[in-house]
Amino acid sequence: MEPIVDFSILPARLRSAERVVTVAVACPADSHTEEVIERSIAEQFARFTLVANTAKADIARRLAADYPDKVTLIVADDDDDAARHAVKEVREGRADVLMKGSLNTDNLLRAVLNKEEGILIKGSVLTHIAVADVPSLNHLLFFSDAAVIPYPTTEQYDAITRYITDTYRSITGGDRPRVALIHCTEKVSEKFPLTLSYEELKANAAAGAYGEVEIGGPMDVKTACDAESGAIKGIASPVVGNANCLIFPDIEAGNTFYKTITLFGGATVAGMLVGTTAPVVVTSRADTADSKFYSLATACLKAINKQ
Amino acid sequence: MEPIVDFSILPARLRSAERVVTVAVACPADSHTEEVIERSIAEQFARFTLVANTAKADIARRLAADYPDKVTLIVADDDDDAARHAVKEVREGRADVLMKGSLNTDNLLRAVLNKEEGILIKGSVLTHIAVADVPSLNHLLFFSDAAVIPYPTTEQYDAITRYITDTYRSITGGDRPRVALIHCTEKVSEKFPLTLSYEELKANAAAGAYGEVEIGGPMDVKTACDAESGAIKGIASPVVGNANCLIFPDIEAGNTFYKTITLFGGATVAGMLVGTTAPVVVTSRADTADSKFYSLATACLKAINKQ
Repeated sequence: MEPIVDFSILPARLRSAERVVTVAVACPADSHTEEVIERSIAEQFARFTLVANTAKADIARRLAADYPDKVTLIVADDDDDAARHAVKEVREGRADVLMKGSLNTDNLLRAVLNKEEGILIKGSVLTHIAVADVPSLNHLLFFSDAAVIPYPTTEQYDAITRYITDTYRSITGGDRPRVALIHCTEKVSEKFPLTLSYEELKANAAAGAYGEVEIGGPMDVKTACDAESGAIKGIASPVVGNANCLIFPDIEAGNTFYKTITLFGGATVAGMLVGTTAPVVVTSRADTADSKFYSLATACLKAINKQ
Repeated sequence: MEPIVDFSILPARLRSAERVVTVAVACPADSHTEEVIERSIAEQFARFTLVANTAKADIARRLAADYPDKVTLIVADDDDDAARHAVKEVREGRADVLMKGSLNTDNLLRAVLNKEEGILIKGSVLTHIAVADVPSLNHLLFFSDAAVIPYPTTEQYDAITRYITDTYRSITGGDRPRVALIHCTEKVSEKFPLTLSYEELKANAAAGAYGEVEIGGPMDVKTACDAESGAIKGIASPVVGNANCLIFPDIEAGNTFYKTITLFGGATVAGMLVGTTAPVVVTSRADTADSKFYSLATACLKAINKQ
């Protein structure tokens, strides 16, 4: 199959998968979540287990009544109980993806990270991977971490690199991701300890830690994504000007990229939490409807094509 | 006069100023610098003192011959000597702006920062201010620090805030800048010490340290620049959705914004160093011709309208 280069083909690709994904939703009680669920049902690529808080179960009850063969309803005592039950659906193998509805992210994460009953992979790092469909690029652009780890350690950068390359392969079907290690200059120096971590990542990559991969950096966003800048600076690398995975030095840079490419670059950005046994979709109120829908669609594709 | 909201009006505004600016250029020996100089002469807003390294003085000699009433030539022994002489032109009041030609930035900065013969204002912090002309915004967007200070201290954030508000007023003619303190979330917490620095900046602003100003944050780039996001999050402030000055938490975020808004947002970005007795223009090889030209033009306007 052709690698996926933009979001528009995702529903068709999911429909052609050998099975339908099941999504457990904690507290589907707002119109945004409702819209994503109905759109996914209309696009015929997912079924849902809706875990509603009994105090705000109207939307979930309506969806279960309207789509009896696509929706299973579980009614929980409160938000925390709903989070626990939704996580349990994943942990016990009845759901492939976990999605946040209208409860606080902290409440959902408490259930996700619970040592006995959660779904964090043992010894694993929870992180966020975003996927941008940028009008001016002819491929999807993966980046991390824009939302969870403030200032990654070398071990956390290593985990981020493993996750992002796995996720790239699962979602696009491409087999040799091109990873740029982002930094404000090309210099490796002790003044910026993160550049020393980057050197370790490159050594890990050379030793095969991330499978088939091209990795380069430190380099800035323009050098990573614009072939001309690299040519002017005289940097030759398969990554320069052509990166499809960006590892950001810290959450401030990752978040700034996320917001800037959305607001000024016309990009649609999907996002998910990884490091768990199943992808977790945690959209935020200010995200567009498309961003929320494609967050779920990319998470479903990742779940189906698990590396 | 109307505030300046994009770059196109800069040459006319400079021509209507009561005097012509003099720019000292260290090592004008490359075609990019040559082009900026000739374009500025054609637009009739600057005269130049070209300090050439004798080993690469051809372009400077040609310009001095072609524009005898606009160009003064000084021939120096080498790059360092050229840097020292160009800085001396500023220090002794014969030039209003310093511009880097084709020498290493480090060589120029050594002369700029020299304790006896440099032009750093005593006790001052050297920092970088960028000005973006973004097609989708109806005002110029100032931001700092994308190039000099890696992880600012509270004192450095304070200096950056003073410089950026002064520079905003000098260049746009507007009198009440709207400053957003950028951070990945709206929360103030000890987990992110920079948010505590931001609280001090807001207290300083309330005490009048930055003159007439609106200041808000912590907030992310989208909240700062997109009114809709602020409305969805329920944050009300004159800055939200309408910021024209962005203070970035660190150089990684500032640099990422710079490169992303240029590459994906279609912005033209001008930049200058401040904290010195005159603005210093230090463009980089990968900048576009427009970016270099408007870097000089904004620096000239700042020099004329010194606060």
